[in-house]
Amino acid sequence: MSLIIIGTVAFDAIETPFGKTDKIVGGAATYASLAASYFYNKAKIVAVVGDDFKKEDIDTFTNHGIDTEGLQIKVGEKSFFWSGKYHNDMNSRDTLVTELNVLEHFDPIIPESYQDCEYLLLGNLTPQIQKTVIERLKNRPKLIVLDTMNFWMDIMMGDLLETIKLVDVLTINDSEARQLSGEYSLVKAAQKILTMGPKYLIIKKGEHGALLFHEDKVFSAPALPLADVFDPTGAGDTFAGGFIGYLAQVGTINFNNMKNALIYGSALASFCVEKFGTERLLELDKATIAERLQQFVSLSSFEIIKD
Amino acid sequence: MSLIIIGTVAFDAIETPFGKTDKIVGGAATYASLAASYFYNKAKIVAVVGDDFKKEDIDTFTNHGIDTEGLQIKVGEKSFFWSGKYHNDMNSRDTLVTELNVLEHFDPIIPESYQDCEYLLLGNLTPQIQKTVIERLKNRPKLIVLDTMNFWMDIMMGDLLETIKLVDVLTINDSEARQLSGEYSLVKAAQKILTMGPKYLIIKKGEHGALLFHEDKVFSAPALPLADVFDPTGAGDTFAGGFIGYLAQVGTINFNNMKNALIYGSALASFCVEKFGTERLLELDKATIAERLQQFVSLSSFEIIKD
Repeated sequence: MSLIIIGTVAFDAIETPFGKTDKIVGGAATYASLAASYFYNKAKIVAVVGDDFKKEDIDTFTNHGIDTEGLQIKVGEKSFFWSGKYHNDMNSRDTLVTELNVLEHFDPIIPESYQDCEYLLLGNLTPQIQKTVIERLKNRPKLIVLDTMNFWMDIMMGDLLETIKLVDVLTINDSEARQLSGEYSLVKAAQKILTMGPKYLIIKKGEHGALLFHEDKVFSAPALPLADVFDPTGAGDTFAGGFIGYLAQVGTINFNNMKNALIYGSALASFCVEKFGTERLLELDKATIAERLQQFVSLSSFEIIKD
Repeated sequence: MSLIIIGTVAFDAIETPFGKTDKIVGGAATYASLAASYFYNKAKIVAVVGDDFKKEDIDTFTNHGIDTEGLQIKVGEKSFFWSGKYHNDMNSRDTLVTELNVLEHFDPIIPESYQDCEYLLLGNLTPQIQKTVIERLKNRPKLIVLDTMNFWMDIMMGDLLETIKLVDVLTINDSEARQLSGEYSLVKAAQKILTMGPKYLIIKKGEHGALLFHEDKVFSAPALPLADVFDPTGAGDTFAGGFIGYLAQVGTINFNNMKNALIYGSALASFCVEKFGTERLLELDKATIAERLQQFVSLSSFEIIKD
């Protein structure tokens, strides 16, 4: 039994009001698998890099017990590269450079050893690649989580809708939920999206937390108010990775476990933004995470006495 | 012992994408006192109206057990009138008409029977009037809550800062917290504002809920996700009224009770927006409110097991 995480493994160059980085290892699958590794020790990635990706970069994954058999290394090619600059409010950013490189012809190969997959996280990639991964698994995983973004809604909504049909949980942000549904009210948006395939919908609201919708139920996860958001890159992927990593650890899918999973994902995401790139994610330990989880408890607990 | 609520009692004409009203009774003190009346039966208002304010309008208050001895009726003058139109997203609105009328020379007279005041809510008004009310109370109330807005920050920040110094709880929205503190991060904004006088700061974030800051503690109250926001007018005043009404009922000021008070305020505000003006607020009962409070419990409860 295992958790497969598919997504980009990439080099990022990030500029925020707090400073800038050279090329550092990033990408959705990187953030998500590192986050998941703190809860579940059988995470496996499916991704592609070029031969500019060094052994020590791969060690980052293996040191966290992440299986990299599904990480293809294309000799003579370069890894996906993204460079971006965040504005002062940290809520908006400009993309400075996007070099697809190896990603352009990415064919996600599933190693035989991955076929025991029970949990599948389809990180942000083209809807076709996400669908191909589902098709190449001999048994349908117990839980498929799909992360996507407005970019795919803009240019290939048809394909995206086909892929969305096949998944259990969809994670998008509030403006994407509005775009996908054509509804301004997030409640109405959720009602519509829950007829498109997913049984669970997570709407991420950044500093305002996240909402989980399922049937007629809704759960609101708070975000930890932070004095400084140092670098928001990867926070959404970290959230998704922490979310599915926790569920894989627990092993039972129900609304209560999903609610907890949102808190675990939010806790990991709150670490992610404290330093540049994956830096903070790499240095966590169970005690530090447990303490942060307790901060979420005090942040949101209250007691209403039934009359 | 009693709760005094000072603020506007006014006529509003409201237009939203769902329809429009003729002149209906509104104003901060109206919404706040109606909300408080569901938790505490000794609410008293201090406000001013013209003789266009009819006996049946006053009955609205007395029917809810609200003391109107402090409601001055200016013969030959007209009540404050506001007219506004909400945009499609319901988060922004245009003010169409503002007629100050009786409000222009409002001198808040505190009846002798109000001098047992333990809880004071200073609804949105000029900072000088708010300060005058504090000065005219012979004994300082146990708890003073101040609600204000960006308008006063724009045109009389000095006076506002003088009044803020005197209160225990300040309630403002997120952009106002940023304006008042000069800090973008709400955590840093709160740290600064908590040195300006108030011991508690509530930052209202509309559909994203509210944050309560006190010393180094923070609490995040969710907002109930609603399919339709019919009319947001008065939601903030209703929140403040429910908040202080609950605290007056409980009678003890501490962080835990404050947290609950935020939930009670949020619950009342969630009713307020379901119909035009005060319509929904007028028809509530304890059972309906108790049910809504349980919705807040399920909305935000989760269980993290300590390792």
